[in-house]
Amino acid sequence: MTLNHKTLLAMLALGALSACSTPCGHLSDGPLQIAKQGSFAVGGTVLTTPGVYDNNRPSAQGQTFHGDHIYAFYQVPAQPRALPIVMLHGAFQSARTWETTFDGREGFQTLFLRRGYPVYLVDQPRRGRAGNSTVAGTIEPAPNDQLFFDQFRLGKWPAYFDNVQFDRQPETLNQAFRSLTPNTGPFDAGVISDAMAALFDKTGPGILFTHSQAGGPGWLTAIKSDKVQAIVALEPGSGFIFPTGELPPELPSAAGTLKAEAVPLADFEKLTRIPIVLYYGDNFPTEPTAERGQDNWRVRLQMARLWVAAINRHGGDARLVHLPEIGIRGNTHFLMSDLNNVAIANLVSAFLAEKKLD
Amino acid sequence: MTLNHKTLLAMLALGALSACSTPCGHLSDGPLQIAKQGSFAVGGTVLTTPGVYDNNRPSAQGQTFHGDHIYAFYQVPAQPRALPIVMLHGAFQSARTWETTFDGREGFQTLFLRRGYPVYLVDQPRRGRAGNSTVAGTIEPAPNDQLFFDQFRLGKWPAYFDNVQFDRQPETLNQAFRSLTPNTGPFDAGVISDAMAALFDKTGPGILFTHSQAGGPGWLTAIKSDKVQAIVALEPGSGFIFPTGELPPELPSAAGTLKAEAVPLADFEKLTRIPIVLYYGDNFPTEPTAERGQDNWRVRLQMARLWVAAINRHGGDARLVHLPEIGIRGNTHFLMSDLNNVAIANLVSAFLAEKKLD
Repeated sequence: MTLNHKTLLAMLALGALSACSTPCGHLSDGPLQIAKQGSFAVGGTVLTTPGVYDNNRPSAQGQTFHGDHIYAFYQVPAQPRALPIVMLHGAFQSARTWETTFDGREGFQTLFLRRGYPVYLVDQPRRGRAGNSTVAGTIEPAPNDQLFFDQFRLGKWPAYFDNVQFDRQPETLNQAFRSLTPNTGPFDAGVISDAMAALFDKTGPGILFTHSQAGGPGWLTAIKSDKVQAIVALEPGSGFIFPTGELPPELPSAAGTLKAEAVPLADFEKLTRIPIVLYYGDNFPTEPTAERGQDNWRVRLQMARLWVAAINRHGGDARLVHLPEIGIRGNTHFLMSDLNNVAIANLVSAFLAEKKLD
Repeated sequence: MTLNHKTLLAMLALGALSACSTPCGHLSDGPLQIAKQGSFAVGGTVLTTPGVYDNNRPSAQGQTFHGDHIYAFYQVPAQPRALPIVMLHGAFQSARTWETTFDGREGFQTLFLRRGYPVYLVDQPRRGRAGNSTVAGTIEPAPNDQLFFDQFRLGKWPAYFDNVQFDRQPETLNQAFRSLTPNTGPFDAGVISDAMAALFDKTGPGILFTHSQAGGPGWLTAIKSDKVQAIVALEPGSGFIFPTGELPPELPSAAGTLKAEAVPLADFEKLTRIPIVLYYGDNFPTEPTAERGQDNWRVRLQMARLWVAAINRHGGDARLVHLPEIGIRGNTHFLMSDLNNVAIANLVSAFLAEKKLD
């Protein structure tokens, strides 16, 4: 039987609803039952300055510096499912991105705990509580709130999109802006994915959720670690990797030109071992436009479609869900924090059930 | 009846033990019952660049920047006690300092949740997940691990103190070093205490725990907010404030000179409204020594004693507990993470019970 794209998507949407009946035992609003919680650092490197340390007249000589690790906070619910979920934030974000929604409701951290998954939240190397960077950095208070408003597809500043799944209380926008936190050193997908692979060595087999800029480090993590059993990528926007010699053309937009990156075929093929799903929200233009915030995403979605096709052409199992195509409208770049984030979580649960990862 | 200092301290130690029988219902190793958890930003300021924002050719013009807020993660247990505990970390630390101990056991976050307190963990402005600083900063990978080993009173690098309450597995030290995370802008006790006061406006009346450098911002928070009902200060080391005209002499040490800071008498007197307890660990020298890491703490303890005396002279209720004086030996600068951290938590519980704050 051959199913076309729309039929598959419709089935997926129904699956999302029916899957809810299975894990609903975990969906109560009652107290969370947490068997264990805590935090740790993992991965990273050590810099050593030559010389002998003088305890009473200390200088750099003979001292070390620990940096480029991940910070992770984990919670294991009572009667946990077998596979934990590891959540990796996007640009200018920290693990905070998965906690409370900007409007104060439960985010993916707590929603998936309620569904029985152990949840690991990460601050990537050189961000948040993992701020010790082995490379120096300068931090400026760059005023970019309005640019982010556009780029997060809340609307075209100062107007919200009519259908936007974002609460319009000023405090909600305040929380969104204050969720931003800077890099403490250069962004480095290699450093991040090295530390993420070390994290998966510690957690054992698990499911990786990524958001936005974490898409690229996410693919690299699955190449470096066979512990990654699936990837759920929310609006990956950069770091799309293709086999050497199979790079798609550059994609110009009003926000700049998006380029794919080359990796050896053997690495790329490691991504064909596992199920991967990519979700994208609403208000993407279909034709080029001068609206920078939206046009930025037009080419990222286009690149994502080319990437999914490449994975599947090489025998993989990747799927792209553009939410408006299955009747889910108004989502911003922060799907996991939007007003309908429970519906998005239900879609993800259905995907995990379909792939027998729950 | 007049009790001398030692008798009071001995009673306090006994109280710590007997108090354990009261909250022991919360002390089980079973699953935590979490009624609610989440995170938010609070306090801070907004910078605005003059001009008109151009959505399609964005520059700084007409844009804003949100910074200098606190990031807080909270958990409310089922059947909570009335007063929450807010925990503020020290220098080079984040809220991580209160989570898992360096050797992997439950830290004060989870211990006090088990004892029924709602717990708020803070990343202060310009640190960790609250990295958006309104003032620029440069971050260098400064090699200081060996200096910190000495300054945290683990021992004299590379040797541990014989009696140290610190697990000697290499991974434990690795976790301690990787708990460090830099400032993303200048340390500013005024900015921190402003945001902390805003946090207490949100939580309502509560108990403030501070560690190390947070001592100073902690006193300022209690001056700015009448919601602070008590302060439990673990090894406050700087920011000791005295009424103008009552400053103690500067205290020189092998690690530099420690100076008190002046505040108006009316502000100082606000600290006499609430019970305050300060705890200090072991391996403080009693006489000046060339050992920098230890001598640093000799003068901080000395200043703390002067400060407690000043609070009490003005009618306040401050107490300094030097743990070796009540028979508790080997504690490092990180009392809440030491091998005997449950005993330290028991002391704190007894203090809160004595002050009817539980």
